[in-house]
Amino acid sequence: MITLETKRRKTEYAIGIDLGGTFIKAALVDSKGKIIKHFKTETYSEISPKKVLSQIEMCIDTLKQDFKKEIIGIGIGAPGIVTKGVMKYPPNFKGWKEVNLKKHFEKKYKTETIADNDANCAGLAELKFGHGSKYNNFIFLTLGTGIGGAMVIEGKIYRGEQNGAGEFGMMTIDYKGPMCLGGNRGSIEAHIGRNYFLEQNKNEIKKLGKNIDFDDISHLALKGNKTAKKLLNLYGFYLGVAVTNYFNLMDVRTAVLGGGISNAYKSFIGELNKTIKTRSLKTIRNKFRVLRSSINNNAGVLGAAALIFE
Amino acid sequence: MITLETKRRKTEYAIGIDLGGTFIKAALVDSKGKIIKHFKTETYSEISPKKVLSQIEMCIDTLKQDFKKEIIGIGIGAPGIVTKGVMKYPPNFKGWKEVNLKKHFEKKYKTETIADNDANCAGLAELKFGHGSKYNNFIFLTLGTGIGGAMVIEGKIYRGEQNGAGEFGMMTIDYKGPMCLGGNRGSIEAHIGRNYFLEQNKNEIKKLGKNIDFDDISHLALKGNKTAKKLLNLYGFYLGVAVTNYFNLMDVRTAVLGGGISNAYKSFIGELNKTIKTRSLKTIRNKFRVLRSSINNNAGVLGAAALIFE
Repeated sequence: MITLETKRRKTEYAIGIDLGGTFIKAALVDSKGKIIKHFKTETYSEISPKKVLSQIEMCIDTLKQDFKKEIIGIGIGAPGIVTKGVMKYPPNFKGWKEVNLKKHFEKKYKTETIADNDANCAGLAELKFGHGSKYNNFIFLTLGTGIGGAMVIEGKIYRGEQNGAGEFGMMTIDYKGPMCLGGNRGSIEAHIGRNYFLEQNKNEIKKLGKNIDFDDISHLALKGNKTAKKLLNLYGFYLGVAVTNYFNLMDVRTAVLGGGISNAYKSFIGELNKTIKTRSLKTIRNKFRVLRSSINNNAGVLGAAALIFE
Repeated sequence: MITLETKRRKTEYAIGIDLGGTFIKAALVDSKGKIIKHFKTETYSEISPKKVLSQIEMCIDTLKQDFKKEIIGIGIGAPGIVTKGVMKYPPNFKGWKEVNLKKHFEKKYKTETIADNDANCAGLAELKFGHGSKYNNFIFLTLGTGIGGAMVIEGKIYRGEQNGAGEFGMMTIDYKGPMCLGGNRGSIEAHIGRNYFLEQNKNEIKKLGKNIDFDDISHLALKGNKTAKKLLNLYGFYLGVAVTNYFNLMDVRTAVLGGGISNAYKSFIGELNKTIKTRSLKTIRNKFRVLRSSINNNAGVLGAAALIFE
């Protein structure tokens, strides 16, 4: 039905901004999820909020140039907490307290602007243009330096009381476990966030060579290296414990994995699935599925644009 | 607005059945949550499903006797998994596989029958007749032998894909922790389910005397006994870890505690609140509240009847 409606409706255009600490990615996207133009530039987050805003404006201006059709809005995916268009205390942005992105860009461009956190945007991209065509309920997880989550319930992003839902990375799986920066001992992020994982397993990782990063471990595991396989099994186990907590609580049966570390999917999915089977209700333990994101690379800009089409 | 609507509508009546392994509690309830009549009898779950059904019928017949107004439906709260009126493999019911309660009682009494699991019913009672008048989003937790949960989201019980949501007791808080009967190592139920807690802390509990049960510990803690206080602090800590997982994930800020062990609320709430503050996002850590259920004793029958008024 959604597909039919989309077909009937005429194609619309929006700008999607994926605001990261290092780069700003921007794209002009149509309502079917096709990227018409894209542009990428440095964020200069170490300079000032003003500089970041002018960099975003440069992206928007570049995309608008020579495009004759109407652009119905600007969607922005930003790190940290975003409430009613206000981006609050993002990690790694110098001098940034609270900046009202919605107000700033609506004034400047006289077009609707919606901002949300980047995990929700990635989940929304999956919902609108990826596995969402088949699954109405899933959790989308971003696996990288941090562990982000977006909850899709009955075809919509669930946002919670104050747009703060989906802090999946903060879920404690071992209350005695390693400390995370937020003070939440034993959270899933403190186990499988990229740097935490590399640090906690450095003795094993040393066996693989010097300057080994996560991609190296993944490549070595695929080639059959036992130490690398063991490490990724551990990754899959930790993630499995947390995903099962979600499945058991929500009676949702699908998880979709995005973010850089999801590239190692093949190396940890076996242990992940095994963990889910062990820890879920006996009567339904064969009904769960964990999928790779179908639109990993452009999820940020597509999801940001989808805020406008939502 | 809800209150106004309720006032405008004429009072309706339903029967609520709280089906437990040992007793069946039944009540005739009005749509304002007032209990008109109530009745209690043995379940005879050790005999047969047929016997249990006839006991429920006896309850219904007793409540209907001499009541002249229309009864608009029968609500049943039952242990374990209940899907579309079918009660499946309840623990401690002999010879019971799947029984369609809805079909059975609709045929017998020609009136709408709705069955749901007992945790959802208790949560629904709180929503309709308790703290729900003030809070639109909360988790209701039943603290007893098992740990049950009912999730209230935007004024409704959230039921999940197949009415299985809210299995709060299965949430892992220590993947290396004690095993629970369901095979889920380190679940919150394996830490604070009544018998698990007593067993794991038996050495400390011995110091308090012989044949000490949970109520004794609670009484001793209130009198200032240090060992008892330490035990209830531990209870509060474990529960706090799990509740914070919920708050962080859902961006919900209220939990309501019911079930027998919630009587010890005063003895563990301090440590529970401290744990939430330590483990939640810094910016909102003073915004959470954990309340006692306002209708503890009759939650079962009130919630079952509320299935009809929902």
